[in-house]
Amino acid sequence: MSDENRFILSRGRLIALTDGVFAIVMTILTFQFVVPIVPVSVIDSELPKKLIELWPIFLCHVTSFVILGYFWIIHDRQFHHIKKVDRTFLWISIFYLMFIAVIPFSTQLLGQYINQKIAIITYGLNLIVILSLNYLYWWYATKNYRLVDDNLNFKLITAASRKILIAFIFYTIAIIMSFVNGYFSILLYIITPIYLFIPVERKLR
Amino acid sequence: MSDENRFILSRGRLIALTDGVFAIVMTILTFQFVVPIVPVSVIDSELPKKLIELWPIFLCHVTSFVILGYFWIIHDRQFHHIKKVDRTFLWISIFYLMFIAVIPFSTQLLGQYINQKIAIITYGLNLIVILSLNYLYWWYATKNYRLVDDNLNFKLITAASRKILIAFIFYTIAIIMSFVNGYFSILLYIITPIYLFIPVERKLR
Amino acid sequence: MSDENRFILSRGRLIALTDGVFAIVMTILTFQFVVPIVPVSVIDSELPKKLIELWPIFLCHVTSFVILGYFWIIHDRQFHHIKKVDRTFLWISIFYLMFIAVIPFSTQLLGQYINQKIAIITYGLNLIVILSLNYLYWWYATKNYRLVDDNLNFKLITAASRKILIAFIFYTIAIIMSFVNGYFSILLYIITPIYLFIPVERKLR
Amino acid sequence: MSDENRFILSRGRLIALTDGVFAIVMTILTFQFVVPIVPVSVIDSELPKKLIELWPIFLCHVTSFVILGYFWIIHDRQFHHIKKVDRTFLWISIFYLMFIAVIPFSTQLLGQYINQKIAIITYGLNLIVILSLNYLYWWYATKNYRLVDDNLNFKLITAASRKILIAFIFYTIAIIMSFVNGYFSILLYIITPIYLFIPVERKLR
Repeated sequence: MSDENRFILSRGRLIALTDGVFAIVMTILTFQFVVPIVPVSVIDSELPKKLIELWPIFLCHVTSFVILGYFWIIHDRQFHHIKKVDRTFLWISIFYLMFIAVIPFSTQLLGQYINQKIAIITYGLNLIVILSLNYLYWWYATKNYRLVDDNLNFKLITAASRKILIAFIFYTIAIIMSFVNGYFSILLYIITPIYLFIPVERKLR
Repeated sequence: MSDENRFILSRGRLIALTDGVFAIVMTILTFQFVVPIVPVSVIDSELPKKLIELWPIFLCHVTSFVILGYFWIIHDRQFHHIKKVDRTFLWISIFYLMFIAVIPFSTQLLGQYINQKIAIITYGLNLIVILSLNYLYWWYATKNYRLVDDNLNFKLITAASRKILIAFIFYTIAIIMSFVNGYFSILLYIITPIYLFIPVERKLR
Repeated sequence: MSDENRFILSRGRLIALTDGVFAIVMTILTFQFVVPIVPVSVIDSELPKKLIELWPIFLCHVTSFVILGYFWIIHDRQFHHIKKVDRTFLWISIFYLMFIAVIPFSTQLLGQYINQKIAIITYGLNLIVILSLNYLYWWYATKNYRLVDDNLNFKLITAASRKILIAFIFYTIAIIMSFVNGYFSILLYIITPIYLFIPVERKLR
Repeated sequence: MSDENRFILSRGRLIALTDGVFAIVMTILTFQFVVPIVPVSVIDSELPKKLIELWPIFLCHVTSFVILGYFWIIHDRQFHHIKKVDRTFLWISIFYLMFIAVIPFSTQLLGQYINQKIAIITYGLNLIVILSLNYLYWWYATKNYRLVDDNLNFKLITAASRKILIAFIFYTIAIIMSFVNGYFSILLYIITPIYLFIPVERKLR
C-alpha cells in the first residue's frame, strides 16, 4: 500500500477519535452538576435555594459547551480540506485532544471559584493552548499544501489562521483583564465564539 | 469543493457526535445507582433492604432511558430526510446535545427527590427544552426544503412536527400537574413516548 | 426513499450506538478500582496490602469484561446476518442496551459483596435479562426472515438461538446454586462464555 | 456470505470499539484532577498552592496520554495491514482493550503515590501486559500471513515486532530500576515513546 493511502486511512480514525473525545467531554461537563444533599426536614425551602446556587456552574457550563461546539465546528471545517494525515500531524492532534479533555476540569475549577484570579487564568490558558495547537496543526497541514488539496484557495487558509489568531488575542486580553475585573474576562470568554461566528462563516465560504 | 459537498461531510460527523453523546448519556444514567455501603454485622438484613430502596431511582432510570431511546429514534428518522447541514443547523444541534447531556443530572435529581415539585419541574423543563430545539432544527431544515430532499412528502414534515408538539403539550401538562400530584406528572413523562409510539410510526411511513 | 433503504440506514446508527455503549461500559467497569487512601506514616506496609485486597473486585472485573466481550462478539455475528432494522427491533435493542449499561453497577455490587446471595442473584438476573432480550431480537429478526437474508441457513439461526438458551440455562443454574454455594455461581458465570467459545464458532460457520 | 466477508465486517466494528475505548480512556484520565476544596477565608493563598501540588498528577497525566497516543498510532498502523479478523484475534483484542481501560487507574495510583515502589511497578506491569498483548495479536495476524495482505513486506512485520519488544525491554528495566530510584523509572516510561518515535517511522515506511 502506498503512503498516500495509509495517510488517508488514518485520517478517518483520527476523526473518529476526535468526535469520540468531543462527545465524552461535552457529556462529562455535566458532572459538575452535583445533586445537592438536603436534610428531609428543610427540603422544601432548601432544595430550590441550593439549585439556584448552581447558577455560576451553569453559566460556566454553557460557556464551555459553546466553546467546545465552536472548536468542533472549526475542526470539522478544517478537515473538509485536510485530505490526509502524517505522523507529526497525528501527534499534534493527540496533544490537541489532551487539552480538549482538560476542559471539564478547568470549567469546574472556574464554576467553583468564579471570582478567583487563578481559576480564570487556568481556564484562559487551557483555551489558549488549544488554540495554539489548532493553529499549529493547520499551519503544518497547509504549509506547502502538505496535507491539503493543491487547489485549496490561499485566502481560505489565511482566513482560517486569522480567525484562530483573533480568538487567541481575545483570550489573552481576557487573562490580562482578570487582574482588573474577573467578570469581564468571563464575558470575553463567552462573546468571543459568538463574535467570530458570523465573519468566519463569510470568510470560509 | 462546493458548499453542497461540505455540508454533506459535516452531516456524517454530526451524526457520529450525536450517537456518541447518546451512548454516553445512556451509560452514565446508571451512575445514580450507587452500591450501598452496609456495616458487616447487619449485611444480611440491610443490603437487600438498601437495594429495594433504590426503586424510585430505577423507575426514573427506565423512564429516562425510554425517553432517550425515543429521542434517538426521532433523530434517526429525521436524518433519513435531512441530507445536508449548514452552520446554523450545527449550532441548533449543539444546543440540542447540551440539553441531552443534562438528562443524567435531572434524572438523578428526580430519583433523589421524587416527591419534590422542584425536581419534577426541572426534569420536565429539561425535556421541553429538548423538544423545542428538536422542533426548531426540524423546522429550520424543512423550511423551503432547505436541507431536505425536494421530493420529501409535505405530510411527513407536518406529521413529524405535530408529533413533537404533542409531546411538548403532554410534558407541559405534566409540569402543571406537579402542583396537584407529582406522581401523575411522572406517569405522564413515562406514558408519553409509549403513547406516541404507534401513531407516529403510522404517520411517518 | 423506500422503507427498505430507511431501515438499512438505521442499522448503521444502531451499530454505532451499540459499539459506543459497549466501549463506555467496558471502560467504566474500571471505576470500581478506587485508589486506596493510606496515611503517610504506614504507606509502605499498608498500600500493597490495600491493593491486594482489591482481588475480588479484579476477579469480577475480568469476569464482566469477558462476558461483555462475549456479548459484543455475539452481537457482531448476528449483525452479519441482520441486514435491516425496523422500529420494533430498535426498541428491543434499546432495552438490550439499557441492561448492558447496568453491568458496571451489578459488577461493582458483586465485587463489594462477593459472598452475599443478593449480589450474586442481582448479577445473574442482569445477565439473564440481557440474554432474554438478545434471544428476543434474534427471534424477531429471523422470524419469517423478517430482517435477515432470505438465503440465511436455517441451521445457523437455530444454532445461534440454542447458544443463547444454553447460556440462559447456565446462568439460571448459577442463580439457584447461590443458595448452596456462592463461589460456585461465580465460577459458572466465568466458565459459561469460555465453554461456549469453541462449539459456537463451529456451529456459526 | 463467505467467511472472508464476515471477517472484514468485524474488522470495522473492532476498530470502532477500539477508537471508542481510547477516546474514553484519554478523557477520563483527567478524572484524577479533582478541583481542590479550600475554605473561603484562606482561598487567596491556598488555592494556587493546592493547584501547584497537583504537578505529579499532571506529570503522570501527560506521560499516560503520550503513551496512549503511542499505542493508538501503533494500532492504527497495524490495522493498515490487518485486513480481516477472526474470533481468536477478536478475543486477544478484547483482552488488549481490558488493560488499556485500566490505565486511568494505574495512572491515578502513580499520581497519588509517585514515590512508592508498588505504584511504579503496577504502572509498569500495566504497560508490559498491553505490549505483550499487542505483540501477541500482531504475531497471530502476521503468522503465515493469516490476516494480512499476502504481499506485505516481511521486513515491515519484523520491524513492528522489534519496536514492541524494545518498548517491552525498556519498561522491564524501568520496573527493575524502581528498586533503585523511582524517578528514573518514571523518566524511562516517558522517554520510551519519544525515543521510539523517529526510528519506528523510518522502519515502518
